[in-house]
Amino acid sequence: MDYRKINLSPSQLLILIFFVSILIGTGLLMLPFATNEPIHFIDALFTATSAMTVTGLAVVDTGSVYTLFGQCVIVSLIQLGGLGIMSFAVLIYMALGKKIGLKDRILIQQSLNQTSIGGVIYLVRNLFIFSLAIEGIAMLFLALRWVPDLGWGKGLFYSFFHSISAFNNAGMALWPDNLMGFVGDPIVNIVISLLFITGGLGFTVLIELWREKSYKKMSLHSRLMIVGTFVINIVSMLLIFTLEYSNPNTLGGLASLWDKLWASYFQAVSPRTAGFNSLDIASLDESTIFLMLLLMFVGAGSASTGGGIKLTTFLVIVLAVITYLRGKKEVVVGRKSIDYEIVFRSLAISSVALAFIFVAVFLLNITEKEPFLPLLFEVISAFGTVGLSMGVTAKLTIMGKLIIIFMMFLGKLGPLTLVMSLAKQDNTKIRYPSENILTG
Amino acid sequence: MDYRKINLSPSQLLILIFFVSILIGTGLLMLPFATNEPIHFIDALFTATSAMTVTGLAVVDTGSVYTLFGQCVIVSLIQLGGLGIMSFAVLIYMALGKKIGLKDRILIQQSLNQTSIGGVIYLVRNLFIFSLAIEGIAMLFLALRWVPDLGWGKGLFYSFFHSISAFNNAGMALWPDNLMGFVGDPIVNIVISLLFITGGLGFTVLIELWREKSYKKMSLHSRLMIVGTFVINIVSMLLIFTLEYSNPNTLGGLASLWDKLWASYFQAVSPRTAGFNSLDIASLDESTIFLMLLLMFVGAGSASTGGGIKLTTFLVIVLAVITYLRGKKEVVVGRKSIDYEIVFRSLAISSVALAFIFVAVFLLNITEKEPFLPLLFEVISAFGTVGLSMGVTAKLTIMGKLIIIFMMFLGKLGPLTLVMSLAKQDNTKIRYPSENILTG
Ligand SMILES: [K+]
Ligand SMILES: [K+]
Repeated sequence: MDYRKINLSPSQLLILIFFVSILIGTGLLMLPFATNEPIHFIDALFTATSAMTVTGLAVVDTGSVYTLFGQCVIVSLIQLGGLGIMSFAVLIYMALGKKIGLKDRILIQQSLNQTSIGGVIYLVRNLFIFSLAIEGIAMLFLALRWVPDLGWGKGLFYSFFHSISAFNNAGMALWPDNLMGFVGDPIVNIVISLLFITGGLGFTVLIELWREKSYKKMSLHSRLMIVGTFVINIVSMLLIFTLEYSNPNTLGGLASLWDKLWASYFQAVSPRTAGFNSLDIASLDESTIFLMLLLMFVGAGSASTGGGIKLTTFLVIVLAVITYLRGKKEVVVGRKSIDYEIVFRSLAISSVALAFIFVAVFLLNITEKEPFLPLLFEVISAFGTVGLSMGVTAKLTIMGKLIIIFMMFLGKLGPLTLVMSLAKQDNTKIRYPSENILTG
Repeated sequence: MDYRKINLSPSQLLILIFFVSILIGTGLLMLPFATNEPIHFIDALFTATSAMTVTGLAVVDTGSVYTLFGQCVIVSLIQLGGLGIMSFAVLIYMALGKKIGLKDRILIQQSLNQTSIGGVIYLVRNLFIFSLAIEGIAMLFLALRWVPDLGWGKGLFYSFFHSISAFNNAGMALWPDNLMGFVGDPIVNIVISLLFITGGLGFTVLIELWREKSYKKMSLHSRLMIVGTFVINIVSMLLIFTLEYSNPNTLGGLASLWDKLWASYFQAVSPRTAGFNSLDIASLDESTIFLMLLLMFVGAGSASTGGGIKLTTFLVIVLAVITYLRGKKEVVVGRKSIDYEIVFRSLAISSVALAFIFVAVFLLNITEKEPFLPLLFEVISAFGTVGLSMGVTAKLTIMGKLIIIFMMFLGKLGPLTLVMSLAKQDNTKIRYPSENILTG
């Protein structure tokens, strides 16, 4: 794997590796003993992409169509895509005792969205130990719940599968109605949500938390992530509880107040990339759906197992806009200022994301006969690698599936990685006189 | 009108004057002889706001419900709101020979979205002569078309009304189906579209064109507006022609290729704030509707009779993103660079606009029983002061109408004017150390 001989930029290589992994996954899922019934190539490709990008959108029912082998392929792709395919490469290098070159490090850096090259190797090792430990503990808890119901074999495998699916924010479940059967179950709600919230914070935040620094000494990034996650989850939970309280097909149909609260909590924290559902998404009120569109677009943390533009990108834009509105020049938060460079980067990420979403929705409205809102929901769910659906995934045309496959790919790699790997970097240094333009 | 005695910022005063004008208009439309049937207060308020903000959304049929007096009130509000209520104040000052103070000028400046104070008075006088001349000439052309059909009285009044409605980008028509009766009529298509395209370029662009500078000597702003308008109109026309060609309820139902081309042209140029329609909007394909959402959001030019975030705001963001993607620091276009300040302003305008649109759509989905897409369309149409509708305007609840009234108000005044008039300007000068944040 000496890619210094290949004339590719780190971003291009990352894209290539993702692409090849998905193709291998597709091939494995096409094997006769991977499925209980023959499936179309496009559906195998869709499933492999959905697993590798930890999205969780499903064109066929994962639990019944795929055999144990097929499900193992899927869970392997999830672990591979979620923990970052590049960190595997680092581990292989480390295991073989080779030293890691700069170009490799940049690659990992991009895979993890890490900013400083120095800490990457250390990060990757800790990340692995930490992730596997969390997944293992969670699996034990889930086994307590599922082994009594499903028996040892199936119960342990289900605990294993859903623990990995949750920590990596894949949101894939082996039940056809996802986790709707456990809408009021405390163990499933707590274990699964803690897994994906932890995975969604991002590894740099987790490592800072692990080192038990005091909150005030933590980096600005970690503080923004922790406070932001807390606030956005609380607000979303209150909104969903209020909006759905009297909807007979969602909260209104649940027996106890506890079930309603669990369901509100779970559906509030899940759309920012996890994508599990304990309520029927298609039955939600359109106001709730609209709220979820925003949550899915924003997504989880940088260097996390999740997708979307990322919570910090969203917060940087909000802070920059507030700064402008208050007539100040410097974007300040938590006694630190944020460089214009970061604001520009956030603007670029959001704009490129919106542009791709716009084109995808536009094209889907041409290729598909489904109504507008489910298609918009599907595209943003794919971009945020969320995996929630209003039920159109299996009905998509081949063109529609290809568009969603592309959006999952884009969401996982990040819009900037993809675009910048294709754009020519221009290093001309001519300076031009500045001129005013009327805006707004 | 000595508002130096009132302790209001220019923005607050501008909002107040708009508000008062709308209330006066509402009162006049409530008079017994303004309508052929009694109308509800909320509908009079809606009509007055729609006219004053040159939006053109209609809760009742303007041509049949309002009497000649009511229609004259409406057309007066359109002229007042379109040419800028503040420029009237300047003219009154000029007529009375009083000199114009700095605070007044800032007010006009904001009303016209002008950046330099110096040229405002000159601009306003030229603007008036130019606008009235254009409206007069257009009226003559329209009269040639309509007097033979409708007779002298009605023909001239209709020419007068639609000429003012078009130049001010109001988009209100006296036919219940707007201009669908003239879908293939060259005179109506050309005159009306030239009027609203001219009005939508913005007065500074018109004045530069008038002075017959060569294109290369024109300001960056004017060049961006001219090229941008041309490109966006051509692309939109081609897209609409392609998307609707075989739709039996729109282009597919038209007899000749010429009619199809006229209709594509007209519906391509109208959504960026004019809001006339020669096709049935509700029958358009959802892909076309989605394209129109973008066009309506972008809107016309700064210092124009139109709304939206403005074409230059959109272009600045596109240019800034391209600059970032190409790895350059300086935003350059047409051999001029654009300050970070302007990029920040554009980001603030777009973000605040999106935030308001988001909340409005969210609330409408709670208050209304209509499907999602028509409500989204209505909100963006109101924000862009466009006035196109998928047919839900008249069916809105009182809460829904109030939300749309607010969005029209917001769209006309500009999101920044509204928000900054409420936000506290903070002038503290503490500097903080800068810190990196992971985004995307
Ligand atoms: K997911
Ligand atoms: K309009």
